[in-house]
Amino acid sequence: MPDSARPIVFVSDFGLGNEWVGICHSVLAGISPRSPIVDLTHLIRPLEVQSGALLLADSMPYIAEDAVILGVVDPNVGKDREVAIASTSGRYLVGPDNGLLSLAWEAAGGADTAVEIASPDVVRPPRAESFRAPDTLCPPAAHLAAGMPIEQLGPTVDPSTLSALTVAEPEIGDGQIRGEVIDFNRFGNIQLNIREDDLVRAGLDGAPFLTIKATAASAEARRGSTYADFKAGEYGVIFDERGRMEIVRGDPESALAGLGLQPGHLVWISRSRVP
Amino acid sequence: MPDSARPIVFVSDFGLGNEWVGICHSVLAGISPRSPIVDLTHLIRPLEVQSGALLLADSMPYIAEDAVILGVVDPNVGKDREVAIASTSGRYLVGPDNGLLSLAWEAAGGADTAVEIASPDVVRPPRAESFRAPDTLCPPAAHLAAGMPIEQLGPTVDPSTLSALTVAEPEIGDGQIRGEVIDFNRFGNIQLNIREDDLVRAGLDGAPFLTIKATAASAEARRGSTYADFKAGEYGVIFDERGRMEIVRGDPESALAGLGLQPGHLVWISRSRVP
Amino acid sequence: MPDSARPIVFVSDFGLGNEWVGICHSVLAGISPRSPIVDLTHLIRPLEVQSGALLLADSMPYIAEDAVILGVVDPNVGKDREVAIASTSGRYLVGPDNGLLSLAWEAAGGADTAVEIASPDVVRPPRAESFRAPDTLCPPAAHLAAGMPIEQLGPTVDPSTLSALTVAEPEIGDGQIRGEVIDFNRFGNIQLNIREDDLVRAGLDGAPFLTIKATAASAEARRGSTYADFKAGEYGVIFDERGRMEIVRGDPESALAGLGLQPGHLVWISRSRVP
Repeated sequence: MPDSARPIVFVSDFGLGNEWVGICHSVLAGISPRSPIVDLTHLIRPLEVQSGALLLADSMPYIAEDAVILGVVDPNVGKDREVAIASTSGRYLVGPDNGLLSLAWEAAGGADTAVEIASPDVVRPPRAESFRAPDTLCPPAAHLAAGMPIEQLGPTVDPSTLSALTVAEPEIGDGQIRGEVIDFNRFGNIQLNIREDDLVRAGLDGAPFLTIKATAASAEARRGSTYADFKAGEYGVIFDERGRMEIVRGDPESALAGLGLQPGHLVWISRSRVP
Repeated sequence: MPDSARPIVFVSDFGLGNEWVGICHSVLAGISPRSPIVDLTHLIRPLEVQSGALLLADSMPYIAEDAVILGVVDPNVGKDREVAIASTSGRYLVGPDNGLLSLAWEAAGGADTAVEIASPDVVRPPRAESFRAPDTLCPPAAHLAAGMPIEQLGPTVDPSTLSALTVAEPEIGDGQIRGEVIDFNRFGNIQLNIREDDLVRAGLDGAPFLTIKATAASAEARRGSTYADFKAGEYGVIFDERGRMEIVRGDPESALAGLGLQPGHLVWISRSRVP
Repeated sequence: MPDSARPIVFVSDFGLGNEWVGICHSVLAGISPRSPIVDLTHLIRPLEVQSGALLLADSMPYIAEDAVILGVVDPNVGKDREVAIASTSGRYLVGPDNGLLSLAWEAAGGADTAVEIASPDVVRPPRAESFRAPDTLCPPAAHLAAGMPIEQLGPTVDPSTLSALTVAEPEIGDGQIRGEVIDFNRFGNIQLNIREDDLVRAGLDGAPFLTIKATAASAEARRGSTYADFKAGEYGVIFDERGRMEIVRGDPESALAGLGLQPGHLVWISRSRVP
């Protein structure tokens, strides 16, 4: 047994309410017992591939260069081929070929090599179509972590044929940005596709207050740096650890509810007339 | 220190709301730092021994042959003796002698050797009767994982004196099965004691629709292979990764609520007249 | 790479609803892959430093002597200095200097050495003030676990300048104790600052029933040893694994709601006139 093994970073929409995550851990640890297993999160909203893809890509700066990333958000349950990808930066990615991994490998320098997972030495027929991962995805991830060359997992695939997501870029004007909601959390904080650079380019980075317009409502939001900066009910804007503009609202109010927003909705950001 | 150690598979009804699971991990890692610890689930419904026993037994195909299984669902809190069992397949099981482990060791080829956990070198008097596991169950599980022979844990016990659960078997007729609800999940999906073989024996395996009769209600359910196969509100039948017939209902409806079922209730399955 | 590494015991108020705990694990495992990581709990009530400090101190008997404890409950987000402490018993503690760690190092024999975490070889500028831990606290904790001497983390600090919490001690009279609520859990069970010794000193240890008086309500509570000892709605008193007096109430009722209590409230305990 080698002295150490690559870490496995696991992200899914399985939730925590049953034994699914545990069964996957059991299979992973059985094949690569020396690999630390990192549960990035298992609370991706069920079947929301883009939300998982963004969270994973935004987390890449915190993920080791030698990690094997196992991603399972699979609305088509086994109808997409299952793939393993070697990124230019050295990380491996394993999951369904539905775009879930695509923003992460872009963030990791691109997809160098890809294979379709098919070797009968690695996978076994799934016990149930409703839960394929322990039979078809956990074994290849763990074998990669334990040192198996990616070519042994199955036939090579042209990386250009892999499914890739496109995330809408914000539209930057002079003093205005049109952005899109990409995610939200249980506190009702809203993540946008807007980064700090975009604010600079629109000339809005010095504004102490920003006007947030949605279709259903609008708000004046104060710039701050963390959640504790805002009073109960007050709207605020921070840049979070994912590098995204986040619209927050002082506990116990929800910015999501207050502005009537959902992922995919547009928002318009401009300088506020407030003081 | 040996180069590696057995994995520990941990299942309980502790929930995730406090420090109990963490304290057990701390004790386990202190004694066997090289053991991967797999949390199968800690959300067994509180004090429901049979539900835990079935989940554990159904998970055995995914659990390594050298695993130490630590199970804690203990409605009698310390009034049952605490035991360690060596199964024929090589896995160890540690927990209260209340039937929780019995379906798992049957699935693992039977109980070869059993001991009552008693050695003062291994256990210490529990700090609180309300939470004995870190003092009386985690240490023996971790010592087994680190290589201690089972005989050192305490006096040998005749395996035939161990508590064992009996799970009702379905009653198979020609074109009809009487089954029993054994579990359900947070989506309201219902697990029955019926396996795919039983459907074949009743001559129902080719039926595209099945009639599900409960005491309070009945439904026509379509055969499918995964959750995504069913429309909102539609009843369906799949065989899940536990090998069990599962009655599901398209999101956001609950089959459990719709049919008025609970664990232990009977259901009658027959060929549907629907197309 | 050394043959083994210190375990890391991680406690926070991050919750389980997003990727924060996962990102911290990723950073920890990247620096000290051989360290078992124990999640003590991440459900400290948000920003409640005293609640986290007490839980951590009460858990010390279960935490290995060579552990590195990483605590993150930080209402001032980065406005307090960040420190690493070597306790007399050998454990290290890493976190904000806001009192969170103070009860734990007292329980571990005192603070021997302390440093302010500052070395640019160890920390990096946080990507976001709203989530500093992966950049400023996880790296020093993991480096300590992997064997780095504490002096390399930053300049030495006089341990007497560290923030320390004071927990109110109960007031013991003849046949009466005035205690304080220090915590509660999701079942509505209430933890007090009263230990079993205090009951002995007040001459109340033999009483089968105790009267619990709060400002808003009072109850007659029966002594027991575990949750299952009490009938639905019945009030009871146990000493839990944290060594604290706990006021419980038979499922499904909540002692917290019934007595109108919150952390910081006073309660008066005396011998009951009940049978």
